[in-house]
Amino acid sequence: MLPADLVQRLERAVAEAAPLMVAERRDFHHYAETGWTEFRTASLVARRLVDLGLGLQVGREVVDGESRMGVPAAETLAAQWERACAQGGDAEFLEVGRGGFTGVVGILRRGPGPTVGLRFDIDALDLEESLEESHRPAAEGFVSVNRGATHACAHDGHAALGLGVARVLATLDDALQGTVKLVFQPAEEGVRGAKSMVVAGAVDDVDAMLAVHLYSGWPTGQVALGRGNFMATDKFDAYFTGEAAHAGGRPHGGRNALLAAATAVLNLHAIPRHRDGPTRINVGRLVAGQGRNVIPPSAHLMIETRGATSALNDYVRESAESILAAAAAMYGCKLEIRAMGAARSAESDPALVERVNQVVAAIPGLSVRDPGPGGGSEDYTYMMRRVQERGGLAAALGMGADLGGWGHHTANFDFDEAALPLAAQLLVTTVLTLMRDPLA
Amino acid sequence: MLPADLVQRLERAVAEAAPLMVAERRDFHHYAETGWTEFRTASLVARRLVDLGLGLQVGREVVDGESRMGVPAAETLAAQWERACAQGGDAEFLEVGRGGFTGVVGILRRGPGPTVGLRFDIDALDLEESLEESHRPAAEGFVSVNRGATHACAHDGHAALGLGVARVLATLDDALQGTVKLVFQPAEEGVRGAKSMVVAGAVDDVDAMLAVHLYSGWPTGQVALGRGNFMATDKFDAYFTGEAAHAGGRPHGGRNALLAAATAVLNLHAIPRHRDGPTRINVGRLVAGQGRNVIPPSAHLMIETRGATSALNDYVRESAESILAAAAAMYGCKLEIRAMGAARSAESDPALVERVNQVVAAIPGLSVRDPGPGGGSEDYTYMMRRVQERGGLAAALGMGADLGGWGHHTANFDFDEAALPLAAQLLVTTVLTLMRDPLA
Amino acid sequence: MLPADLVQRLERAVAEAAPLMVAERRDFHHYAETGWTEFRTASLVARRLVDLGLGLQVGREVVDGESRMGVPAAETLAAQWERACAQGGDAEFLEVGRGGFTGVVGILRRGPGPTVGLRFDIDALDLEESLEESHRPAAEGFVSVNRGATHACAHDGHAALGLGVARVLATLDDALQGTVKLVFQPAEEGVRGAKSMVVAGAVDDVDAMLAVHLYSGWPTGQVALGRGNFMATDKFDAYFTGEAAHAGGRPHGGRNALLAAATAVLNLHAIPRHRDGPTRINVGRLVAGQGRNVIPPSAHLMIETRGATSALNDYVRESAESILAAAAAMYGCKLEIRAMGAARSAESDPALVERVNQVVAAIPGLSVRDPGPGGGSEDYTYMMRRVQERGGLAAALGMGADLGGWGHHTANFDFDEAALPLAAQLLVTTVLTLMRDPLA
Amino acid sequence: MLPADLVQRLERAVAEAAPLMVAERRDFHHYAETGWTEFRTASLVARRLVDLGLGLQVGREVVDGESRMGVPAAETLAAQWERACAQGGDAEFLEVGRGGFTGVVGILRRGPGPTVGLRFDIDALDLEESLEESHRPAAEGFVSVNRGATHACAHDGHAALGLGVARVLATLDDALQGTVKLVFQPAEEGVRGAKSMVVAGAVDDVDAMLAVHLYSGWPTGQVALGRGNFMATDKFDAYFTGEAAHAGGRPHGGRNALLAAATAVLNLHAIPRHRDGPTRINVGRLVAGQGRNVIPPSAHLMIETRGATSALNDYVRESAESILAAAAAMYGCKLEIRAMGAARSAESDPALVERVNQVVAAIPGLSVRDPGPGGGSEDYTYMMRRVQERGGLAAALGMGADLGGWGHHTANFDFDEAALPLAAQLLVTTVLTLMRDPLA
Repeated sequence: MLPADLVQRLERAVAEAAPLMVAERRDFHHYAETGWTEFRTASLVARRLVDLGLGLQVGREVVDGESRMGVPAAETLAAQWERACAQGGDAEFLEVGRGGFTGVVGILRRGPGPTVGLRFDIDALDLEESLEESHRPAAEGFVSVNRGATHACAHDGHAALGLGVARVLATLDDALQGTVKLVFQPAEEGVRGAKSMVVAGAVDDVDAMLAVHLYSGWPTGQVALGRGNFMATDKFDAYFTGEAAHAGGRPHGGRNALLAAATAVLNLHAIPRHRDGPTRINVGRLVAGQGRNVIPPSAHLMIETRGATSALNDYVRESAESILAAAAAMYGCKLEIRAMGAARSAESDPALVERVNQVVAAIPGLSVRDPGPGGGSEDYTYMMRRVQERGGLAAALGMGADLGGWGHHTANFDFDEAALPLAAQLLVTTVLTLMRDPLA
Repeated sequence: MLPADLVQRLERAVAEAAPLMVAERRDFHHYAETGWTEFRTASLVARRLVDLGLGLQVGREVVDGESRMGVPAAETLAAQWERACAQGGDAEFLEVGRGGFTGVVGILRRGPGPTVGLRFDIDALDLEESLEESHRPAAEGFVSVNRGATHACAHDGHAALGLGVARVLATLDDALQGTVKLVFQPAEEGVRGAKSMVVAGAVDDVDAMLAVHLYSGWPTGQVALGRGNFMATDKFDAYFTGEAAHAGGRPHGGRNALLAAATAVLNLHAIPRHRDGPTRINVGRLVAGQGRNVIPPSAHLMIETRGATSALNDYVRESAESILAAAAAMYGCKLEIRAMGAARSAESDPALVERVNQVVAAIPGLSVRDPGPGGGSEDYTYMMRRVQERGGLAAALGMGADLGGWGHHTANFDFDEAALPLAAQLLVTTVLTLMRDPLA
Repeated sequence: MLPADLVQRLERAVAEAAPLMVAERRDFHHYAETGWTEFRTASLVARRLVDLGLGLQVGREVVDGESRMGVPAAETLAAQWERACAQGGDAEFLEVGRGGFTGVVGILRRGPGPTVGLRFDIDALDLEESLEESHRPAAEGFVSVNRGATHACAHDGHAALGLGVARVLATLDDALQGTVKLVFQPAEEGVRGAKSMVVAGAVDDVDAMLAVHLYSGWPTGQVALGRGNFMATDKFDAYFTGEAAHAGGRPHGGRNALLAAATAVLNLHAIPRHRDGPTRINVGRLVAGQGRNVIPPSAHLMIETRGATSALNDYVRESAESILAAAAAMYGCKLEIRAMGAARSAESDPALVERVNQVVAAIPGLSVRDPGPGGGSEDYTYMMRRVQERGGLAAALGMGADLGGWGHHTANFDFDEAALPLAAQLLVTTVLTLMRDPLA
Repeated sequence: MLPADLVQRLERAVAEAAPLMVAERRDFHHYAETGWTEFRTASLVARRLVDLGLGLQVGREVVDGESRMGVPAAETLAAQWERACAQGGDAEFLEVGRGGFTGVVGILRRGPGPTVGLRFDIDALDLEESLEESHRPAAEGFVSVNRGATHACAHDGHAALGLGVARVLATLDDALQGTVKLVFQPAEEGVRGAKSMVVAGAVDDVDAMLAVHLYSGWPTGQVALGRGNFMATDKFDAYFTGEAAHAGGRPHGGRNALLAAATAVLNLHAIPRHRDGPTRINVGRLVAGQGRNVIPPSAHLMIETRGATSALNDYVRESAESILAAAAAMYGCKLEIRAMGAARSAESDPALVERVNQVVAAIPGLSVRDPGPGGGSEDYTYMMRRVQERGGLAAALGMGADLGGWGHHTANFDFDEAALPLAAQLLVTTVLTLMRDPLA
């Protein structure tokens, strides 16, 4: 698909970038930062993109403040920002990200031609990483020093991959015919960040959009095209506020927020199936009450809904809101609902998928695999939908990075770093191909 | 307390009345009629009171139509009225009771002096009477011919007792110094009738009010003074109306009245205890839905609340109403609540109780017993409260009528008819004593 | 597909049979009989098949007693049987069906060749038919005289269609090359009957099995091939038995079957969705308790589960059984579960569907339509699965019979009788085609 | 009741002790320690009792290790012990209390005569004390330095009162005729400590047992005799352990501990009232689940039951255990129940109450008040019952210490220290009276 000499140059560039990707991945892992607090990570990404000669959009340019969801409290933001300063973030770009504006877009504009967007998510999870000897990051000294935050979903790899791709593309500068946008997105966990970058217009000019996700459970080098069918989803918190009373002396007093919450939980899970397709509801966490002998005056529920389409998700979310309101009314409680995240349903465009398919076939070490059943959600879908709505094409890819053992979102998660150069080669080859032979 | 000769006359009159009381009790038992359909019973009571020379108030004079609760459907009233005509009711007074106005008050006014009221309830229960050989009414030919209606709470005895008391008082006419009102009340079961007689003013002029209830579980002749502590109560039906849908083809359709009802049932039973005293809640019956494969479009709940005081009962009823409303809202159902019965809390006046205590002590064959714990309800309490609010005194009595065996409200219930003359003697003696030596 | 002269003969035979089909449909409608009580209907079907010269299998030959589900009580069976005798059933075959053995199979065996099975269900619904003037059966004198039973799902048409097909086939006797089995099945409503005919072996020798269902909501003549995706289903009743107590006097007494049932209802509806495909759960009806002031000692739930596959249905049914058992244990209640109906998931074989497709194309007045979404269940699936498991092919068809207005299972349901000859032509043509050009 | 000169000496001794009581109360307040971690408090109490010449029983002598309930984790005990060392505890007695053995008994044995026991509880609450200027402890520098622990129920006053009483009794040494036991009890909050001292035999030889509780809500000097009717109570935690699963990808997976818990919560609150008297149930706190998109694998409920009698409490607790077990079974969860506290019902002996009544009447500044309704629980009841079961008498007293404003168990709680000498005078006078004129 590409001239043989270009392929050779590309392979060389990838080989040179590979050790750097591993090093950067381990650095990001070591200083894991969760959604909207990726101050250090984002600042270093921005610094390196600049150093590589890319154009840059950062902070409020690419993150719409109002559209952010699930932003931590101001004190938390401030404390984590201080921590980022202390842990070697880049001073100039730390300032830009302050307050939770940790999105970065690197731009390589080389003459006329299509604009290809690549998205990389960069945040860690709220999870205490394992310190066991058998856990490689612990054994080899790059376990998260930010206890309670862990890169257990490979976004450290995604961030490093984005920098690796930037490096390779910078090397092949003369071979580009069009524009590449490298979109580094904060707060994918909880599907909180993509919408704000879309609203800020970060992908408005993209003709073809791609993202790849590494999976530790698939053999390294296997590529899932049009990965999964993403379900639309809403993440929200419900707060019931009642009134406390002494359970022995005034059992009839107060307004029992736990009874309201328990009623809500049962009825939320009883929201009927919908004829038109799969839906989901989960109350993942409930914290209610104070002391044993106090009528519980408060309850906090963490809820998510999903639907195979946005309409189905709306059906579940609206049913849930009715149930919550009625449960609160039943016990005279005040109800507050706070949006904490959202993603849309989306499907990869067949033409773009087919193009990637051809690229995979041409790269030794890569092969195609079935993406498996759906059920998951991704806020990359906001970007896919925006690009598709404006006439472009979008696709989501998965790539195996097997290390045996632990699943995503577990304390011992790790992945095979050999997947990083493979993924870089896949993305850069696809970019070049799309520039030489644009789709539609 | 009374002159010896008067006592002797009284005893003779009671002895003469005794076989008639048994006969009339068995007649009422044979033609059992449930609340608001006591057409035959009430018409015969009225006829006999007139025949004995008593003054009479009947029908709408003593039953306020709007205040009646739990009145059967018009067709039922019509059908039972036809039945009463066919079963030998008195034509004149059947006409008066038509449509469910089956209260009767007999009045003996003999010169100045206090007005003493005696209340007798006359309705049967919705219950299929036993036809077993061992059941005396079946063996001796006075089992209820009105299948589905049974005198299983001794109100047949109360009605006959009222007539016996009228007969004895008529005989002792010259010994009276004041007025006696014999109040025959419909629809005590479900506490549906007393309020309507109180609203109609039937006891407004009463200075001292008494009622006696026969109990098959206590030895014959034992008298409980200030029987029980009546709990205030509300009986009401709740109807949820949702919308049907095919459970397979449109699972998300309709509005599920059964889910609303099930949510209500659990939360109704979870209404907290009250610090200030005993309360009760019961959903005695729930009927919901149509076919197996249809989202249930309707649910009907039969509910009762109780409280040691009217305030406590109000607390439970109001909590219940909130819960029902919220449960309906949760599933988009319409809610209708219909009052089906009510009684107040009430306590017997110590001075009147003490007077009865003295009477009991003076009558051979009678003795005092403990009334036992409360928990029950009686709409006689409406009369007690009205009399007390207007400055009079009121008391509730219980009398043993032991026949071994079956409890109240069972298909084999029967009682010892030897209690009838004992009760008549107790009541008439008390009336005479109150006239000769009025309380306050 | 067929020789022109055969087509002409066929069309003539159908035209002759058409008025008879209408008359027989209206007769069955007039004397509607519900599942397992189709004594009159089945006896007349059997008589007419014999008169047409078909071989016959009836009663226990084609209905396995143990495998019947949801059979009415013995008294009901006896009463309906007497009614059938009075309403002109055939004496000989009434005797055969006595006790609920109302299946009939007519057989035309004409030389070697494939065995084609056609299934017709014959039972009515538990529903009170409309007597409104605007309802044609009422206006034209064939409304159901068996009040409470109504043919509101066109099974009267199916039964008449089966006889019409028999009549046409008997006329074309010489054109047959193989065997035709006309399977008249009782108790399809509630999916209670097919299994018993399958267990009795009624379709064991069938090579190609077809059934057609008339739908009033589709334009007459439109044919859905491979109609719907039938969900597997279980229908069962759950009985909780607790213990009564007086709600006022012994609130802590008894064992509350309604609380157990309400807990079960909420948790049944909360059975989680399954990743692998659509599922359903419904508690269509709940009756609990006795009197308002009695702790409810009993509860009866009518439940159904569904799944896109039998495995998915098993998942829901097993979850439901666990929940019911735990809810009973929670309140010390006894639990009894009674199977009331069942159907399997099934899919039509593409090859057979394609054959019908060709037949539809060749018949003027017929056209193909989309079967629409699934969600429904049919116990014809037992026959499909049996035939498929033994190496044969099976398919389910739908045919429009539009009359405007009312849906299936409503009191005013009616259908366009012009669909009857169209359906007969479709089935007979398919049979002849399958005999001349067998599939695999 | 006492000789005038003895009264004068007593008054002088109390007046001398008063400022010390205030100082010690403020010291204990400043270094508030919660149940089983009263290392500093107990060690200083013990040291001062020894210094006053009292005999001493401490640590495992008076605290049975196995009978302690709700003991904090070993690390917490260790950390708080280190803190107590750093905050000036008495080295010798710190060693004795190590590991949570913080009970102390001081003994004054003066010749033959009755043994009078006085109980003082010494633990603080888990509560963050107010730092507002309007809060006296904050304004005057004795606010709790142990953040998260606060004396918001006056046990600091009780401890200081015990030392004051010891000081006064030591002064009046020659007037004693019998034995006084001053019982300083840990962990009254949560009713966790008394049982262990009773099992260790600390009150086995007591003839008359008294305790006084200060109440900020009553006017200073008002004394409630036979304070409250203590309800029997059980405090316990329930842990449901299920299994996590991804809510989007495996909605049917896992075992949902939150659904089990919500079902339990509703049904626990629905435990029926009991005819025989007041009962209580409360789920004061529920924490369930992990992340929003994970089927909750765990739930922790903090529960308490109460009953006017131990039998009634047993009824509720046993019902609760059944419900919890069934709810766990419903969702295939493991259930663990841990006892966290318990108290018995108890009533004060009228003879002892009457004696205190006489003492109150003789002391200027004291008066009697109504103890008000019950509903509360106290593990002092274990001591009352033990003394009563061994033939002694016991009573519980309350004394007003009004400061306006905040209630017990709130962050701003404070009390009127003028109550301390009044309480000391009441207790010492009662002790002397009981020695001079023993009760039966």
